[in-house]
Amino acid sequence: MKVDGVAYRSIWREGEAASVVVVDQTLLPHRFETLRLENVADAIDAIKRMVVRGAPLIGVTGAYGLAMALHDDPSDDNLAAAFAALNAARPTAVNLRWALEIVRDAVAAVPPGARAAAAFATADRLHAEDIATNGTMAAHGARLIREIWEANGRSRPVNILTHCNTGWIACVDWGTALGVVYHAHDSGIPVHVWVDETRPRNQGASLTTWELGSHGVPHTLIADNAGGHLMQHGAVDICLVGADRVTAHGDACNKIGTYLKALAARDNNVPFYVVMPSSTIDWRIGDGVKEIEIEERASDEVTHIAGVAGDGTIVKVRLTPKGTRAANPAFDVTPARLLTGLVTERGVAKASRDGMLALFPERA
Amino acid sequence: MKVDGVAYRSIWREGEAASVVVVDQTLLPHRFETLRLENVADAIDAIKRMVVRGAPLIGVTGAYGLAMALHDDPSDDNLAAAFAALNAARPTAVNLRWALEIVRDAVAAVPPGARAAAAFATADRLHAEDIATNGTMAAHGARLIREIWEANGRSRPVNILTHCNTGWIACVDWGTALGVVYHAHDSGIPVHVWVDETRPRNQGASLTTWELGSHGVPHTLIADNAGGHLMQHGAVDICLVGADRVTAHGDACNKIGTYLKALAARDNNVPFYVVMPSSTIDWRIGDGVKEIEIEERASDEVTHIAGVAGDGTIVKVRLTPKGTRAANPAFDVTPARLLTGLVTERGVAKASRDGMLALFPERA
Repeated sequence: MKVDGVAYRSIWREGEAASVVVVDQTLLPHRFETLRLENVADAIDAIKRMVVRGAPLIGVTGAYGLAMALHDDPSDDNLAAAFAALNAARPTAVNLRWALEIVRDAVAAVPPGARAAAAFATADRLHAEDIATNGTMAAHGARLIREIWEANGRSRPVNILTHCNTGWIACVDWGTALGVVYHAHDSGIPVHVWVDETRPRNQGASLTTWELGSHGVPHTLIADNAGGHLMQHGAVDICLVGADRVTAHGDACNKIGTYLKALAARDNNVPFYVVMPSSTIDWRIGDGVKEIEIEERASDEVTHIAGVAGDGTIVKVRLTPKGTRAANPAFDVTPARLLTGLVTERGVAKASRDGMLALFPERA
Repeated sequence: MKVDGVAYRSIWREGEAASVVVVDQTLLPHRFETLRLENVADAIDAIKRMVVRGAPLIGVTGAYGLAMALHDDPSDDNLAAAFAALNAARPTAVNLRWALEIVRDAVAAVPPGARAAAAFATADRLHAEDIATNGTMAAHGARLIREIWEANGRSRPVNILTHCNTGWIACVDWGTALGVVYHAHDSGIPVHVWVDETRPRNQGASLTTWELGSHGVPHTLIADNAGGHLMQHGAVDICLVGADRVTAHGDACNKIGTYLKALAARDNNVPFYVVMPSSTIDWRIGDGVKEIEIEERASDEVTHIAGVAGDGTIVKVRLTPKGTRAANPAFDVTPARLLTGLVTERGVAKASRDGMLALFPERA
């Protein structure tokens, strides 16, 4: 997607270089800078410091990190050591282990002299697949946006409400729910996005607004509290969100607050879609509310916040009385009954076991 | 209610003094200080600078302001001038005009020499009535809390979720929804309050946490996004909110985000009550979603926030990319069908025309 008219990806390799360049996300939305990762230590540091964030992007960064390690020392010992060090950089990110295992398996039987090339080729493939999967998903979702536009006689922009950040900087390109927005916008459908600020970490206020503004997509920030009111007054045509995990019954675990918006959408007959690749489906579990354990994060993510002061410096401030304790569940589960559908790389599925198996019969 | 063990009200007169003392709310929650208002200019300044806030408290402050004006100059000219100046201090606060008119009407026929005493007596009456109404309402609501406690075999604290600030510092004492909490707590029922931070102005994070902490009521701050998840997992026994306006059909206009919590409460069979004096009922209108115009506030209430920096200074920071535009509807309307009941000074009414008329037959 674009930043001030220039097409970017969140991570890329220049030709056959044994290094990658990434967008430094620690500086967003206040500064846009790129950073070159030259070796495995740089990759580990980038993952740990959240220079790169978003599960798909972390996975691809890990794959390139392992390739850079093998470029410097292709021995079995170094392969094992680099795998372990990269995997430990963000232990809860399942995509990281998944990507590292793919690279390790691809080079295990390769003679040391050819390992770096094989590893870079595998990382390049993961990079390309992420873009292709998201692009396909975006095209499927954009048809939903087009239908609304046509149903309104092309008379006004389609109003989309989204939650959290599901954009290209969390992936390699496109993103999930925001990928649909970009695809619709790039194909000439006028859209306007209501961006939930997404407390407490404000990924909507800081990252989604930055992405949409940089690519030129009309948008308006709102407090998370405002979406229900907008839906009551016909100001939202469709809700699009991502997911961290979808169960085999179609329940969607996503950023805290998603469930409240799905309730409001149902109460006002607004279609509500989850956009996610099929790799997000956890086929082993059924009832998401009962079976998914929700991560409880630090209290100070609620009681404190960082922003830019008048003098341009970034300052962290306390919003509460000293010593106030906050609970901070990071995700919630939206039951399948509240979802209009799931947009995947194979098309739109009903959020039910049968609906999902119709698109993914190999899981039956 | 108490601040560190000492009972306070948000405004009080010391004996027969021709002045009042108020809690300086511009410094909360970071500092607790009181301020003496000596004359009508002080009262106007306090209302304008939001040293005093909350519709009931603004009304009582205005009444005392008019009494202080008459103490300095009881002439008809000064009565008219002071009335106009006080009324202009917060033109949208209906309680202010209401209180000023009561004082003016009470002194109009009184000879100038006796006007100040009559005006102070009237202001004292409004002060006492606010406390009495809220205290009665609190007692009615506390019975609901006691029923839950008894139904659980007194086995654990009653978990109450609330939104925005509805406490004693918005009134003279008690408050509305928080008044119920205080009454239950003071009568020995163990309670725990989930405090919605209430973006964008964070009245929950800053004022409700401060009130509850100062009075010694157990509480936990949450992002507005978290309430639905907590209700799904049985962590909320009852929701109590205030209201800015309730229609004759029982629809409740309250701080933005209330509607989303009411939807979650309904989806999880959690009782949801609005606590408000009958003066909040607008008997002229029926459908709140269609008929109540919602105030749109400044964009920078969403994009910027103030807090305490590490060095103790209060700093305002920007949370978004420069130039991000935000929509900021201040209230939403919760349809009567989502409310379990309305707690008023005459008891608990069903949120319907018939339910309200049963308690207020004089309105039929």
